[in-house]
Amino acid sequence: MAGKEDLKLLGLLVSPFVIRVRMALSTKGVSYEYVEQDLFNKSELLLKSNPVHKKVPVLIHNGKPLCESLVIVQYVDELFAGPSILPTDLYERATARFWAAFVDDKLCPAWIGILKAKTEDERAEKVTETSAAIGQMEEAFDKCSEGKAFFGGDSIGYLDIVFGSCLFWFEAVRRMFGVEIISANKAPLLTAWAERFRESAEAKEVVPGADEAVQYANKLAAAAAK
Amino acid sequence: MAGKEDLKLLGLLVSPFVIRVRMALSTKGVSYEYVEQDLFNKSELLLKSNPVHKKVPVLIHNGKPLCESLVIVQYVDELFAGPSILPTDLYERATARFWAAFVDDKLCPAWIGILKAKTEDERAEKVTETSAAIGQMEEAFDKCSEGKAFFGGDSIGYLDIVFGSCLFWFEAVRRMFGVEIISANKAPLLTAWAERFRESAEAKEVVPGADEAVQYANKLAAAAAK
Repeated sequence: MAGKEDLKLLGLLVSPFVIRVRMALSTKGVSYEYVEQDLFNKSELLLKSNPVHKKVPVLIHNGKPLCESLVIVQYVDELFAGPSILPTDLYERATARFWAAFVDDKLCPAWIGILKAKTEDERAEKVTETSAAIGQMEEAFDKCSEGKAFFGGDSIGYLDIVFGSCLFWFEAVRRMFGVEIISANKAPLLTAWAERFRESAEAKEVVPGADEAVQYANKLAAAAAK
Repeated sequence: MAGKEDLKLLGLLVSPFVIRVRMALSTKGVSYEYVEQDLFNKSELLLKSNPVHKKVPVLIHNGKPLCESLVIVQYVDELFAGPSILPTDLYERATARFWAAFVDDKLCPAWIGILKAKTEDERAEKVTETSAAIGQMEEAFDKCSEGKAFFGGDSIGYLDIVFGSCLFWFEAVRRMFGVEIISANKAPLLTAWAERFRESAEAKEVVPGADEAVQYANKLAAAAAK
């Protein structure tokens, strides 16, 4: 990309979906203006930029808004020079997209369901769903990583960003409900991967602690109970 | 692509998701072996090729399976020469991906919900959801097409394939429940677009009639009632 880029990211510090975009921009070494949003009192800019979903993240590039984290990460990858985020091999790229869709369609609704459950039965059901999805991600890691450190190989790639962005919330779920989403005995490969992800410079730069997630979950629960 | 490609598509004639892949392959002028599946009695090949979702479409390329229609269409577009299916402009490409996700996450669950509703109240709710999603697609068409014939411009592109593959089911829904999903007075742009899509050579080649959809819906309903 030649010329000066005007990049503004509407975000929320504890949103895994926003973290994905921040990690993608960081991977490409691109600087941007970060604007924290209050989702309890949505800004005009957010409502105007994402009228369909009214959600973060929104990346505003030279005045034009982009929404949906997976769409934005791919846009960032295609637009900017620097390390490739999606695999360059087309079959591996398709596989990464398949599992990214699985994270968003199956895994996220399951673990977010643990937080939002209104009864203990409902929570138990979501724990079971989450556990099944993690079992499938453990197998996916075995196939995708080919014995390397990350889903993306030797360095953090698309699927690492998409899945890894949720990890600090898993720790929040453990503290709040005593549920261990990734356990060393059932998912040894993901356990080791998660540790490597947390220790990476890319993650340390933008991933908050579990404390912040617990606080936000309590704030959401209080608002839902009103 | 150099060399001989071995392409086998596991499909179902009335599946919009399979039709997307067939239209993508047709756009690229690629020949393939089509293998109709019986979803009431799933084949070993389907279960082995898509163990996660056990669904069609599955494209098997030189022995390696690809699943999820949006993933496969992008793979086909990236792999084969010929007309580009996704927009080449990166912002337009991101916009097409955004609306494709909207079709799959909002529009499809809504119209499929009309078919699957167990009560009249539930059906009415799904009709309202479908209508709202169509209203948003009407606006999307206005923005994406820039006055041209299709979402993709002068010819059928990614979003046309993703959305257009559902149209024959809308006619089935009209016959079964008297619900007009795209109406000329509320969605004049989509009404004209849908007519152009139906008349296109690409659609005529692989899109069945509404009769087949009605028959399949009745078969599904009979199985669900067992």
